[in-house]
Order: sequence, then structure tokens, then C-alpha cells
Amino acid sequence: MKEFDTIAAVATTMGESGISIIRISGNNAVNIVSKIFRGKNNRKLEDIKSYTMRYGFIVDENEDIIDEVIVSYMKGPRSFTAEDTVEINCHGGIVVTNSVLKQVIKAGARLAEPGEFTKRAFLNGRIDLSQAEAVIDIIRAKTELSARSAIMQSEGKISKEISLIRQRLLSVIASIEATVDYPEEDLEEITAEDASKRLKNILVLIEKLLNTAEEGKILREGLQTVIVGKPNVGKSSLLNALVNEKRAIVTDIPGTTRDVIEEYINIDGIPIRIVDTAGIRETDDIVEKIGVNKSKEKIESADLIILMLDLSDELNEQDIDIIEYIKNRKYIVILNKADLGSRLNKDELEILDSKYIIEMSVKTGEGLDKLKNVIKDMFFYGEIKTEDIYVANNRHIEALIRAKENIECAINALRDTCAIDLASIDIRNAWKNLGEITGETIEEDIINKIFSEFCLGK
Amino acid sequence: MKEFDTIAAVATTMGESGISIIRISGNNAVNIVSKIFRGKNNRKLEDIKSYTMRYGFIVDENEDIIDEVIVSYMKGPRSFTAEDTVEINCHGGIVVTNSVLKQVIKAGARLAEPGEFTKRAFLNGRIDLSQAEAVIDIIRAKTELSARSAIMQSEGKISKEISLIRQRLLSVIASIEATVDYPEEDLEEITAEDASKRLKNILVLIEKLLNTAEEGKILREGLQTVIVGKPNVGKSSLLNALVNEKRAIVTDIPGTTRDVIEEYINIDGIPIRIVDTAGIRETDDIVEKIGVNKSKEKIESADLIILMLDLSDELNEQDIDIIEYIKNRKYIVILNKADLGSRLNKDELEILDSKYIIEMSVKTGEGLDKLKNVIKDMFFYGEIKTEDIYVANNRHIEALIRAKENIECAINALRDTCAIDLASIDIRNAWKNLGEITGETIEEDIINKIFSEFCLGK
Repeated sequence: MKEFDTIAAVATTMGESGISIIRISGNNAVNIVSKIFRGKNNRKLEDIKSYTMRYGFIVDENEDIIDEVIVSYMKGPRSFTAEDTVEINCHGGIVVTNSVLKQVIKAGARLAEPGEFTKRAFLNGRIDLSQAEAVIDIIRAKTELSARSAIMQSEGKISKEISLIRQRLLSVIASIEATVDYPEEDLEEITAEDASKRLKNILVLIEKLLNTAEEGKILREGLQTVIVGKPNVGKSSLLNALVNEKRAIVTDIPGTTRDVIEEYINIDGIPIRIVDTAGIRETDDIVEKIGVNKSKEKIESADLIILMLDLSDELNEQDIDIIEYIKNRKYIVILNKADLGSRLNKDELEILDSKYIIEMSVKTGEGLDKLKNVIKDMFFYGEIKTEDIYVANNRHIEALIRAKENIECAINALRDTCAIDLASIDIRNAWKNLGEITGETIEEDIINKIFSEFCLGK
Repeated sequence: MKEFDTIAAVATTMGESGISIIRISGNNAVNIVSKIFRGKNNRKLEDIKSYTMRYGFIVDENEDIIDEVIVSYMKGPRSFTAEDTVEINCHGGIVVTNSVLKQVIKAGARLAEPGEFTKRAFLNGRIDLSQAEAVIDIIRAKTELSARSAIMQSEGKISKEISLIRQRLLSVIASIEATVDYPEEDLEEITAEDASKRLKNILVLIEKLLNTAEEGKILREGLQTVIVGKPNVGKSSLLNALVNEKRAIVTDIPGTTRDVIEEYINIDGIPIRIVDTAGIRETDDIVEKIGVNKSKEKIESADLIILMLDLSDELNEQDIDIIEYIKNRKYIVILNKADLGSRLNKDELEILDSKYIIEMSVKTGEGLDKLKNVIKDMFFYGEIKTEDIYVANNRHIEALIRAKENIECAINALRDTCAIDLASIDIRNAWKNLGEITGETIEEDIINKIFSEFCLGK
């Protein structure tokens, strides 16, 4: 195990709550906390046993009490980081938590970088890179289903699959090299045809993993959905109905939604990241204009657009502009205000390039379930099973695609040249690509980038 | 100790972080968590020792893993609630934390009410009521100084003071009753004059405590400060300068600040709760009007008003309206935009009823320190000492005032009637008033009200 300095950070969300945790990891964790901890009868921490806790106080340099705490100790390697780890549970206030952290830093710990605890768990070999990445996915999971998918990754289910494929690639490489390097020896020779056949079988495994990527990405990141429509057509009301709580202020004044508001809704375990936008109508109000530009950005990056029209009124210029703006995109059309009667000329809807047109009254709730089912049908093929592995991380998907391409190159080389030694370079590259997923073959700056996206204290 | 059912709640702030804690308290805490916990080699929890921890997994009814956790156990009465307490440290995501909590509830715990853990600590006699109230003050403390004041209360410093006064009141009562009930016996009799003298000494102690109330309240709740001024005079910019971060969107459009924005700033340990308001000008914009009404409410309840005028321009009707609106209130005047030159007719400032007029340029930072010093001078008398007790809680202050009044009544009764037995009723009432602070003499519904204002999980 490598030797690192001792780091500290608040491991819980900052806010007003019962408890906060300050986590300290490294060889000096016990010594550092011991300096500022006063237990019963002034008992310090030096003799604390692993996986036990002590009640006491954190004090400052004047022995003034900063907070009443419980400290716990996990001796490395049986800890999250695989290093000696002390956790201080103090009162959950922002000021008091920061005061305790300040004493820990004064006593000799360094403030941890975002993700540094998990990075150490990886660098110390307790978990591989894909397991480390799963930690943040568990934390950010928006539905139980996405959490479960991340937990499976954290248990090493994807790593296991990847290792298996890499072993098989290595075995092909070994056969090729034996054939090329020691042709005179009495080893079983591999033909270009044999190698190609074995690679094609491996390709099937990689493609099977890649097939889970679209659903996996939605599980991990949520389906990026944008609601668009002219002012006052009911966008905020639809968002509210879907999340069942009043987040956006809904009034009868067009142009109220100044900021883009985001919410996650959960459709049978699928996280839908839904965005309510200021209308994309032109406006002279500068503040509103900021919102309008944000809307356009959101539309560009959306997986799905929900277009709202007013069933109780005729299409107007604004509607036509919006329809024009989103053409060629994947969208669902909602004809809202069905409770106010139908004055919309349905013939005009022929300009719409969507097979999903839903009559709805956000007010009465009519059509809401239909919308949910349509979203599910559009993006998911059958039931999501909790025991399935989903490759969800972009980095993993890209590595799998590169591995696939390299194997395809190898197969082509074998077919065109029958030079098995040339193919072995591509196969080795594929083996390397897959190693990036588990972190066995990866550059240090990529590792740093991955962990820098973690939250502080993890 | 009373017997309660077993309760559970998330004890950390919900958000995306490294760790969340689910706290379970009650006789069945270990049994309940044991049902859903799987340790190494399927080891359960039944034999877990107090103040130790175990690594494992929380599973659902299908034995599917919900999360990887560390559980810790504090056997009652050596726990926060004085009951058997298990804490589950799981990943700090919102979904995963709720999933674990759901399993705990399914396994037989009841979801705790806000403040119920602390309420049990009180009902089980581990802490008194003023100590219990200090818990939430520690959590909500806005500066280190206010945290320290709350921690002193949680250690029982105020309780001790109150108990001392109550003992002295009780001793006066005892003397009076002995004199009245057993006049024939050979007991030392107390005269009206004696009783009065002893009560006056007690009154001094109560007044000493009450003298700390104004500063104590500010330490606890923050000095309620409102910034007012016509649109575009620099209210949001001042707030931003004071908190050193951009919270309000500052543009050049009058009327941008739609919502009332609150921030705490820290002036030498004194928390200043500062509110930026939409201008109080009349407006036709309905959304803005909501903000304007909120502003007026904020002005009504403020301890201090900061009036901003534009030094680079003449007073206009809006300024006059605002000055009219806040007359008779405690306010500081800031003449902003000093960097743009002075076109304000200073003679006109004679209508201002404030001895604090500060020239400032929020843009360059000129005058900011002066503002901070003025605020400190206006509300605090000399240095705040960390070892002083501050009575900060309104409930405590009211109880002290009632006790004071009752003692004064007793002193008056003793002077006017010399009937010491009549006075003893008032003294007993004062003794009861003070008992409300520590919770020794208090109605159940008041207790319930106090704890209902706590946060969930505390």
C-alpha cells in the first residue's frame, strides 16, 4: 500500500440536521483526532480499538468545547479508504461542523480534494476504477432502480464481465505470439481463421454489453426531457402535476417562468429529468430573455421534447414557430386544456412530425398516465430487470466502442492479410481499452479527472 | 425510564454526499436492524456490543442488496436518547438513503416525528428542557460565537443558574410556610421584611439574566436587518458585497429582485440576518408586487433597517416615500455611489431621523467596514465574551419576565399587607415559572410544541 498524508473532509451534506460526519483518513488519523478529543476522564484515543466508538468533546487550543461528539475508528485496511480512518459525528449545523473541521485541520490533517477518499480506496487497491465510479452513481441515483444498477457495478459485476473478456483476449494474444515467435516448437498453432472465430465470439460479448448502454445511460443520468410551448399553455402546471409538488410559481401571467426549472420524476424506476422552460417566444424583457436562451440550449441537448399546444384554441404564430424550431427532433405532442373544449383545427396537426399526440387536461389529470406510458415505450424495451447489468458510464461505453473497433480491425486484418502478428497489435489495443474501465491500464490524468468530479467528502 | 416504541429517521441532511446516517432508537432497535442487515458470513447483529460497529449490507425482502453500510450500536442509557440506538451509515444519496430507511420501517420501526429523538432524551431524563432546546440552537447557529453560546446552554450552564434561583425561592417559601403553619413551634420566624429582602436579592439574579437577553437573542436568531431603497440604488450589490458571493442576480434593470433574498453575515461573531428586498415603489407587475408586499412585512419585523440613497443623484419622490414609510424605526442611512460624485443636496437629509449616515461606494468597497462597525456599536455593548451565559430563547425570556413580575408582586404584597402567606402564592408562581425553563413544571402540549419545531431526524 502506498503512503499518503492524512486528509479530512465533511462526509455528509451540509445543512441543518441531527448529525454531521467529519472523516479523517491516513496514518495519522488517530493521532490528529486524539489531540483535539477529550473523552470521559480526559481519556484520549491512542488505545482505541478498530470498529469501536467513543463519546466525548472536541476542544480548541484553549480547551474550550467546540462540540459534543462520538468518534469511531476503522483501522486500515478494513476501512473505506483501506487506510486508518477516524470519523467524528458532531451536531449537524453548518457553523458547528465547520468549526470541528477547522480544529481537525489545525491539528494536522489536510483538507481532502473532491473524491479523494474514493481515489485512495482505488489507489490502495481495495476497489477497481469502475467500482469507484459506481460510488458516485449510487449517491446521485435518482430512482431505486438506478441505485440498484449502480450498486451492482460497485459490487464488481461489470468489472467481472470485463475481466473475463480481457482474459479471453489475452489468451488469443498468447496463442498468436506463441505461433509467431516459436513456430519451430511443438505448440498448438493458431490459424488466422481460428483467431478470427475466437475474436468474433468475444465481439458478441462486447456488443451485448453495449446494447445495454442506451438504457443504462438513462438509468444513470435520467432521460433529458424538455417541455416547450407558448406562454400560458400549461408547461409549469404539467411539471407540477408530474412531480406532485409546487415548485414553479404558477400564475396567469404569461412569461412568469423566468428560470429553467428541473425536476426528476420516476416512471416505473426510470428517472426522467424534466425541464420546464420559459416560452421560446421573443421577448423584450431582458431577465426573461436569459431564460429563453437557456431554453434553447436545453432543447438542443434533450433526449425528448414534450410540445404543449392549447386544444381549446387555434394554433397561432408562436405555436408554428416552436414546431418549426423542434422539427427533426424526437417529440411528444400534448394537446392541453381538453377540459375547455376543442377549438384546435386537427387538420393543422398534420405538420407535426410525431406519432405520439395525447389529449390532456393537466387541470383534471386526464392524459397524464398516457404520457408516462408513452415515454416508457419510446425509450425502454420491455421490463427493466434488477439483476441485469447496465453499462451506464460514458467512459465505459467509449472504451467498449474502441475495444470493439480494434477487434473488428483485427478481424479484418486476419481476413485480408492472414498476418496474425499484425492483428495481435489491434487485439492488444482492445485489451488495453477494456483495462481502462477497471483502471488497470489508464493514465494518471484521467484518474484525476474522474475523481475531481466527485463531491467533497467522498 | 418510560417505554416507547422504536423510531427511525435520517439524521443527516438529505443531499448528495459521502455518507448518510439513519438513526433507530428504542428497545427493538437491534432486532429491527438485524432483520435487514447481512454482515460477513451472514453474521447478524444480535450479539453486537455497545459502542462497536459492523460492516455489511442492508437487504430487502428478496435478499437483494439495497446498500453497503456500517452499523453502530449504542446501548441505552449511554446514547443520545438514553435508549438502545442503532445507526446505519449508508451512501449519502437521496434515493439510496430513503431506500434504506424504507427497509428499516418495513422491518418494524416507526418514522420519527421532528425532534422526537431529542424529546426522548428529555423524557428519559438524560437532559433537561433547556439543554434539549440548546441542541437545535447548536444546529442552527450562524456564527461560532452563537454556536458556543448554545453549547454552554446544552452543557447545562443556564439550567444550573435557574436551579440555584429556584432553590433560593423554595427556601423563602419554606420559611414563610413554617412561620404561618407552625407559629407555636420553636422555629426561626421570618418577618415580611426578611422575606422581602431575600426576594430582592433573588430579583437581582433574575435581572442579571434578563440583561443578557437582547444580545442573546441576536446571537441566537441573528439581527434582523432589511435593506430598503428605490430600484437600482444598489441594494442587491450591497448584499452581495456583504456576503461576498453572488446570490441575487444583479442587472441594470429596475425591479429585478423579485423575491426577498436572505443571507447571514458575520460581524465579529454576531450573526446579521440581512434581507434584500424588492423596492417598495408601487408597481403594476403582479409578480413583482408579491415581492413588494413581502418587503413591507420584512420591514415591520426588522431590528434594523438600512436605507440606501443615491449620493450621485437628487432625492426623488420614491426616496421620500420610503423615508416616510420607515420613519420612527431604527435605521442606518447609506449614501451609495460615492464613486460617481455627489449631486445629493445634503440639506435635504435633515428629514432623516438617524444619527448614522455613511457615504459608501459598494462598487469600490468604500464605507463597507464603517457600516459593519456601526451595526456592532448599535446593538452590542462592548466585547462578547465566550464564557458569558446569554439567555437567548424567547420562551426562557418570557418565563424570566413572569417570574420577575411574580416576585415583584410578592414584594409589593409584603410591603402593603405584611401578609406573608399571601406573598407565598406569588413566590410559588415565580418558582413554577422558572421550572418551565428546565422543564420541571411544564404542560405536555408546550413540550410537544417545542419539539415539533425541531428538524426531522434530531
